[in-house]
Amino acid sequence: MSEKRLYEQVYDAIKENILNDYYKAHTKLESIRNYAKKHNISTTTVEKAYNQLAVEGYIASRPRSGYYVTDITKIKKQFQSVTLTPIAYHPHPNDRITPCMFETKAYKKTVNHVLNYDTETLLSPCHPSGEPRLREQIQRFLREERNVLCDVNQIVVGAGIQSLLHILLGITQNNNVMYLTPEFTKAINIFRQYQYTLIEKASFLDLLNTPSDFLYISPSNMYPSGEILKVSDRNKLITWAHDYDAYIIEDDYNYLMRYNSQVIPAIQSFDESHVIYIGSFSKTLLPSLRMSYMVLPPKLYALYQKKYFNFAQGVSKLEQLSIAYFMESGLYYRHLKKLSKLYKDKNEILLHEIAHYQSDQFTIRSTDANLHLVFDFKQKKDCQTFIKNCHNLSYKYQKIIGTNSIIFPYSGIENTAIPKITKALLKNI
Amino acid sequence: MSEKRLYEQVYDAIKENILNDYYKAHTKLESIRNYAKKHNISTTTVEKAYNQLAVEGYIASRPRSGYYVTDITKIKKQFQSVTLTPIAYHPHPNDRITPCMFETKAYKKTVNHVLNYDTETLLSPCHPSGEPRLREQIQRFLREERNVLCDVNQIVVGAGIQSLLHILLGITQNNNVMYLTPEFTKAINIFRQYQYTLIEKASFLDLLNTPSDFLYISPSNMYPSGEILKVSDRNKLITWAHDYDAYIIEDDYNYLMRYNSQVIPAIQSFDESHVIYIGSFSKTLLPSLRMSYMVLPPKLYALYQKKYFNFAQGVSKLEQLSIAYFMESGLYYRHLKKLSKLYKDKNEILLHEIAHYQSDQFTIRSTDANLHLVFDFKQKKDCQTFIKNCHNLSYKYQKIIGTNSIIFPYSGIENTAIPKITKALLKNI
Repeated sequence: MSEKRLYEQVYDAIKENILNDYYKAHTKLESIRNYAKKHNISTTTVEKAYNQLAVEGYIASRPRSGYYVTDITKIKKQFQSVTLTPIAYHPHPNDRITPCMFETKAYKKTVNHVLNYDTETLLSPCHPSGEPRLREQIQRFLREERNVLCDVNQIVVGAGIQSLLHILLGITQNNNVMYLTPEFTKAINIFRQYQYTLIEKASFLDLLNTPSDFLYISPSNMYPSGEILKVSDRNKLITWAHDYDAYIIEDDYNYLMRYNSQVIPAIQSFDESHVIYIGSFSKTLLPSLRMSYMVLPPKLYALYQKKYFNFAQGVSKLEQLSIAYFMESGLYYRHLKKLSKLYKDKNEILLHEIAHYQSDQFTIRSTDANLHLVFDFKQKKDCQTFIKNCHNLSYKYQKIIGTNSIIFPYSGIENTAIPKITKALLKNI
Repeated sequence: MSEKRLYEQVYDAIKENILNDYYKAHTKLESIRNYAKKHNISTTTVEKAYNQLAVEGYIASRPRSGYYVTDITKIKKQFQSVTLTPIAYHPHPNDRITPCMFETKAYKKTVNHVLNYDTETLLSPCHPSGEPRLREQIQRFLREERNVLCDVNQIVVGAGIQSLLHILLGITQNNNVMYLTPEFTKAINIFRQYQYTLIEKASFLDLLNTPSDFLYISPSNMYPSGEILKVSDRNKLITWAHDYDAYIIEDDYNYLMRYNSQVIPAIQSFDESHVIYIGSFSKTLLPSLRMSYMVLPPKLYALYQKKYFNFAQGVSKLEQLSIAYFMESGLYYRHLKKLSKLYKDKNEILLHEIAHYQSDQFTIRSTDANLHLVFDFKQKKDCQTFIKNCHNLSYKYQKIIGTNSIIFPYSGIENTAIPKITKALLKNI
């Protein structure tokens, strides 16, 4: 790469002469033969350089006459090799998963399986909705684990929830979205980008009297408390959606078989006509895997069908087929079972450890289906101390605006490190 | 998965009785102990079922009294197991690459390298702009191959051009975009989605007198002709951008070292302040790989820096690191060299073959940097025959609206099959 080929040197020399005005516009260049002879190089080399200069427009050939310098406005490239302030992005040690929570070996096997046996498939573009083989697996998974019944065509795969919302807002023409605070920023920002009116509500009961086009909610794992919306409330939601002809966007972002209780069926299983179900692999497989899917109600599928060719699939086929195979072979199911046990253990160890310190200064909200806690501090100063302690550890946290409550993820903390870290987090509280 | 566990059977039985109104609202359930005794099962099993029913809200426990049936609006799930008409998506045998155009073995090696040595990295979320290691490689590649000089922070990686445009339109507030016909639909549709005014122009000269916020263009490989915008015209474009304070979106979608001539430097290399450079790996590596990148001018980078946390990275880390390693190890450069030779050969064989048939009925536009031809038919009926022939072969084609011209991709056709397929394509013309 670094060694300059001969013709490039010729090209560079002539180009520089043109840019320096040494070769004036409209003057004739030496013939290829003369140039070659003078510099003792082959005519092929010179011809290649001349061709390149002509292709880029520095010189032009006139039939039966030769090459002439073009009249070009001088190119004065003034590149200021500025070093820009980098984006302040630091991965937080608590906002990741621990090595035992990912099946490296099994996943490697599936990726290689695809690379060995599906190479031909990789050579053609992706299906806009996602590979049929993957969507069949998602369909089966949703039916068995979430009570979600749907046709495979209703499933659309995308590179994360933002991609899916871009598609959803691309096929509908609505104006507003309602959600409970604190908002799930990554999702709500997409609605912001389309200038939607944002209707924030503080409690579930406030939702039911307000009309809106979309309701964004996670009924099986309300954020951040982890509460489950009860059946009676789910029914009220469905009635609300019918009354206002609204769509519920059910973000099932952190589905896990709960260890102490059976599966909570998705709200989509109560009414498929007014619910857009969204699921993801980030929380249940790998945070750095960018793959989500949505189930469109039949009415929206009809709209999607008319416009699907507008949307390019965002997930690479290798990854889609790897996950399909991971599910087909039962590895994903086995992994989810293992994961829910790991979640439960980690949660118990952490709560047990915090109990040593627990005073009157704060209470804890927690479930074994989440890998975050909510600390509700009684006093502002303790909340601030906790934030300071997080900063000292480079730990991630989210303050719930207008409260003394902190959402604290702990998926990246090894069980053995929990005592030490709890101590550091609760220092001076 | 399929075998029902005992507590699920208990759960199902009680739930059905509630839904069938056999257990009335507000009535008390048998105690756990009694239920267990009556059915000869363990109290743990019954407790688990009761817990689950309580979690879902079918029953509620009253302290020191027991469990009571909740008053729920009856859930009548009326799922119509409709089979929807599937999306009419057929991969076309000419719209793919042939096996020899992908380095399966080398790519497999890089993916496994990442899975073996970077497992820890995969456990944390992606950098919103893309992994620094990948962006460093892209920076180097752009400098060496495209004359594009930029800071690594200016580079943003995304899951295809649509994802990148969503980010671009998310940080700017503009109203219109100009481009040459035929449009690159996948890109222009994003502007449509944001209700941009679309300014279509038929020729390059028409652009220069029209003000606009964005100009979408591929100067190094004009679509579909493959022409290169000459230096003098590039200068005019830069002047235009300065005059109207507009941004040029340079879509360098199909960069390949041209076989007969040297690299054409990107227009970004003339002026970094008004050009947004966009590149991709789909055309040079694998059509099913969804990874693109853009270089933001410093002014737009400043806006991006304020909003980057709004955008989730759409490309999985495994894929980002695999490509980074593919570039680091020199494999990508070697592959590009091989590819440009393959492109050239395929192009020559095809043109040679068509020459046997070429009559006065059509002319061909083609370059060895593209894997598509443009057929310009003199008569409508021949154009229609060609389209019919494409349909018979299930081949992809794109008719340029308002003309008798057809864009025909041929990357998926094996060299050995070219004679046979040319014959079938040009039948009755």
